[in-house]
Amino acid sequence: MIQLNGIFPPLPTSFDKDENLAMDMMIANIEKLSAYDLRGFLVLGSNGELVHLSDAEKAQVYEKAREVITPDKLMIAGTGGQSTRETVMLTRAAAKAGADAVLVLNPFYFKGLMNPEALKNHYFAVADASTIPVIIYNMPANSGMDMDADTLLILSEHPNIIGLKDSGGNVAKMGAIRKRAKPDFQILAGSAGFLVPAMSVGACGGILASANIAPAQCIAMHKAFNSGDINAASRLQLDIIPVNNAVTKKWGVPALKTAMDYIGLYGGPARKPILPLNAGAKAELLKILDDYNIKA
Amino acid sequence: MIQLNGIFPPLPTSFDKDENLAMDMMIANIEKLSAYDLRGFLVLGSNGELVHLSDAEKAQVYEKAREVITPDKLMIAGTGGQSTRETVMLTRAAAKAGADAVLVLNPFYFKGLMNPEALKNHYFAVADASTIPVIIYNMPANSGMDMDADTLLILSEHPNIIGLKDSGGNVAKMGAIRKRAKPDFQILAGSAGFLVPAMSVGACGGILASANIAPAQCIAMHKAFNSGDINAASRLQLDIIPVNNAVTKKWGVPALKTAMDYIGLYGGPARKPILPLNAGAKAELLKILDDYNIKA
Amino acid sequence: MIQLNGIFPPLPTSFDKDENLAMDMMIANIEKLSAYDLRGFLVLGSNGELVHLSDAEKAQVYEKAREVITPDKLMIAGTGGQSTRETVMLTRAAAKAGADAVLVLNPFYFKGLMNPEALKNHYFAVADASTIPVIIYNMPANSGMDMDADTLLILSEHPNIIGLKDSGGNVAKMGAIRKRAKPDFQILAGSAGFLVPAMSVGACGGILASANIAPAQCIAMHKAFNSGDINAASRLQLDIIPVNNAVTKKWGVPALKTAMDYIGLYGGPARKPILPLNAGAKAELLKILDDYNIKA
Amino acid sequence: MIQLNGIFPPLPTSFDKDENLAMDMMIANIEKLSAYDLRGFLVLGSNGELVHLSDAEKAQVYEKAREVITPDKLMIAGTGGQSTRETVMLTRAAAKAGADAVLVLNPFYFKGLMNPEALKNHYFAVADASTIPVIIYNMPANSGMDMDADTLLILSEHPNIIGLKDSGGNVAKMGAIRKRAKPDFQILAGSAGFLVPAMSVGACGGILASANIAPAQCIAMHKAFNSGDINAASRLQLDIIPVNNAVTKKWGVPALKTAMDYIGLYGGPARKPILPLNAGAKAELLKILDDYNIKA
Repeated sequence: MIQLNGIFPPLPTSFDKDENLAMDMMIANIEKLSAYDLRGFLVLGSNGELVHLSDAEKAQVYEKAREVITPDKLMIAGTGGQSTRETVMLTRAAAKAGADAVLVLNPFYFKGLMNPEALKNHYFAVADASTIPVIIYNMPANSGMDMDADTLLILSEHPNIIGLKDSGGNVAKMGAIRKRAKPDFQILAGSAGFLVPAMSVGACGGILASANIAPAQCIAMHKAFNSGDINAASRLQLDIIPVNNAVTKKWGVPALKTAMDYIGLYGGPARKPILPLNAGAKAELLKILDDYNIKA
Repeated sequence: MIQLNGIFPPLPTSFDKDENLAMDMMIANIEKLSAYDLRGFLVLGSNGELVHLSDAEKAQVYEKAREVITPDKLMIAGTGGQSTRETVMLTRAAAKAGADAVLVLNPFYFKGLMNPEALKNHYFAVADASTIPVIIYNMPANSGMDMDADTLLILSEHPNIIGLKDSGGNVAKMGAIRKRAKPDFQILAGSAGFLVPAMSVGACGGILASANIAPAQCIAMHKAFNSGDINAASRLQLDIIPVNNAVTKKWGVPALKTAMDYIGLYGGPARKPILPLNAGAKAELLKILDDYNIKA
Repeated sequence: MIQLNGIFPPLPTSFDKDENLAMDMMIANIEKLSAYDLRGFLVLGSNGELVHLSDAEKAQVYEKAREVITPDKLMIAGTGGQSTRETVMLTRAAAKAGADAVLVLNPFYFKGLMNPEALKNHYFAVADASTIPVIIYNMPANSGMDMDADTLLILSEHPNIIGLKDSGGNVAKMGAIRKRAKPDFQILAGSAGFLVPAMSVGACGGILASANIAPAQCIAMHKAFNSGDINAASRLQLDIIPVNNAVTKKWGVPALKTAMDYIGLYGGPARKPILPLNAGAKAELLKILDDYNIKA
Repeated sequence: MIQLNGIFPPLPTSFDKDENLAMDMMIANIEKLSAYDLRGFLVLGSNGELVHLSDAEKAQVYEKAREVITPDKLMIAGTGGQSTRETVMLTRAAAKAGADAVLVLNPFYFKGLMNPEALKNHYFAVADASTIPVIIYNMPANSGMDMDADTLLILSEHPNIIGLKDSGGNVAKMGAIRKRAKPDFQILAGSAGFLVPAMSVGACGGILASANIAPAQCIAMHKAFNSGDINAASRLQLDIIPVNNAVTKKWGVPALKTAMDYIGLYGGPARKPILPLNAGAKAELLKILDDYNIKA
């Protein structure tokens, strides 16, 4: 059983100015971030723009990323598609590339049909077909669906489904799952905005956009909580909220990429229809970064 | 300028029992439905499970469908992807296959970033790149986004954007667009549940799941309204609501496919995670079909 | 059985500059509007700010309004409260004042508990206790709940529940109810934004905010449809949409009151927390009114 | 400045079998609960069915409750109405009765008009008129509105607005407010489902339905966190989630009242349209209570 107890940045996928894959830039980012005591990396999550890549590009990212992610760090690969067959196909590609686990967002286009039975059927088929462990991904802001505790508990029963990344921020739900799921089921906070609250109800770590630009601070927050220093953990938690909000809910991927450019990593453009930040938002963002003392 | 004034079935994509493309079955369906006075067909809309197909499969469907859709009938092709580049690529494939127009669902994964500016940029880029006309597709139940009148009016200004399919059912919004858009902007109802109400505020036709199983009734409703016989149109409208509800909002694609099997077309399975109807739902559905007098 | 086949303005409740009831102003409004061929009036609906009045004020409005609403016109009284006992109490006060029917918004504060059984129990208790007919009021934009067709059909079965005002604009739902409810169940459109579409699926009239400021146009639209002149009805429908949108969804009660002041009725202030329109919105509104040719 | 750092049960209002106020029962409940180290009581919150009482009944509850709530415990009174004038009137009645503070839910019927300016105007008018401190109440599940951090921060600036009860469970938002609001602004968790997570981002206590039936456990959770024993706090947090869920989100007020009856307090009926629990739900509830070891 792999242990997810730590911090994972969800790596943005790097594109050049023509929106073509810029794997060299992504590799350089991974190398720089590898200096920190991260538990691993997520490639091709929401911030990795999974939905913007062709299948061939996805396979390329899985492979190239694994070449540079060292064995002491986990590589989790986002592989959730709308059909079960696509999800299985991507999961196999990720396993072949050497991923340690896959993160599977639920299918959501046919929301009205995604009842617990359909979701169980889907996740169990993927988990059966996968040679590596499966982590459930609940991401209501993007999927337009919020899987509830009862549904997630049904999914958690599969022996190859080892955890949940929840980006919805409903900590009461996370607590309900922690209370009722198998003891080794692992919960990951999906945002640095609620890492400490999530850990206070049993989460063991987080996949945090902010960990791309503030890895030391995210790791410190995680360690403070685990060492029992709740005061320090709370202080770090409050401090990171403005930055985290800026690169997630408020401005999202283009803000994260702009921040990465600002601090000496490669950000570059997102693929359209995502537009770059306008000048006003960019100025606001840089001020928030400066206030938090994130520097180049 | 192509005229959309009529009825279009959104063809389900046919799969065999192993969920592989069954183009022969789809072709047979098109041939049978071509006996009716339909304005044309939509391939790879929501009911066509666009999101469940690989890019190669999409191209194959565009091409094979056009071979059998006769020139007197329009072929509209669904080509909306999450990225602008994917949408342009699919649009070109559809045009190359001989589609008369494309139907473009808005990108919706990064909902929080899809403001009017981003949507304008996306749709204008697609319309600029397309050699055939573009129809906007608003489908809140699946996309989790409902583009408002002001946004849709901005999009309607591009000379190569000729119309809108709205599946949300907000007829006041359709009326507002009809009132304010360019005179030749064409509005299509996205469901047989509100075809007559939509026509009463200026829609010229509809892309209707029910037109796969009740083409004569849908065409009769359209003609009754256009001939000024509002009483007949209203009666036909009320009569079709239970059937339409069954194959759309209530049970969706698997119900539509089950109904097609029942009346002598090919339905077959949807791709998973969509499950077949359970026995109870199937019995209910067949009763609704019988009550409406749809027979094999 | 009273017939609801016509147009009803939902009268705003008049307040003086200190927000005290100004019944003289309200009476003058009723007298002026009575010159039109309206089917009747609604007092203390949403536009009547029912929720802003004390119980004593509500009784006073019911009584004073009835004194001036002539017997040839129906007086419908809004009486929906959060508790069954309050709703019964207000319904009795309305009946005592001489109302012809009551309009009962569903309780909605405890949304999570308002399942079909609770709603049936509530509406049936009110209908049993009422000496005058009950009309159901569905108003999702204010209540935060949208009663579905199945629930509304259950409610419609009570012999003293004679109709439904639906302000949600879901015409497919109205059609489903028209198709399945008892033949004499009467459906009223809740907005001039979709009167003609609603009539095309069987609505017999409407309670329309716009009927306070454009009664002739609303009546003409209703008559055009009923005389079979769907083209005229559609044209009138499209023409009223901008004005209607301005005094409902866009700016609501304060815009309606501002418009009434502009055309020679009494508008006055709404009770706070509703603020008067700011200068920019007011200028936009007056331009919309002028474009529609509503004059003092 | 009063200190809210502790646990408050939101007292249900007691009714007899005819739904009349049963103040003796409510008084007996208060007396029994006063044996615990609670910081105080909330009367006429959501669980107190504020919206189901007449103005005279509300005044009676404020007065009778204060007579029995000892001076060492705070009495917070719910006074939020839809109009500013009603809210001021109720706030004055509560202050006259001796309440220590008022809890003011935002007006929400005219949701579309409740922009930050209207909300600021409302809350500042109430806070200006009130002789006792005002606590903001955000309760999206009932109001259908979720005030965001920016709006709440604007409201927090009034010197007589001392805190916020947030029942939405968005701890990232609570953290953002804690980070940016005046230092003595006090945040209360609105549910025992997220007390510890809320405290981990700076909440000082909670108004918790569960504190009516598990006061010792809620107090222990609060003390454990404050003493720095995060492990004990987390364990108590996870343990209470099933019970808390049962008496809040899942079954609400009637479950809370049933549970109170079960443990030797007075529960009794809620006012209709709230129905008593059906037999199946009641059996499930009692099992959950037994599992948590809450006994008569």
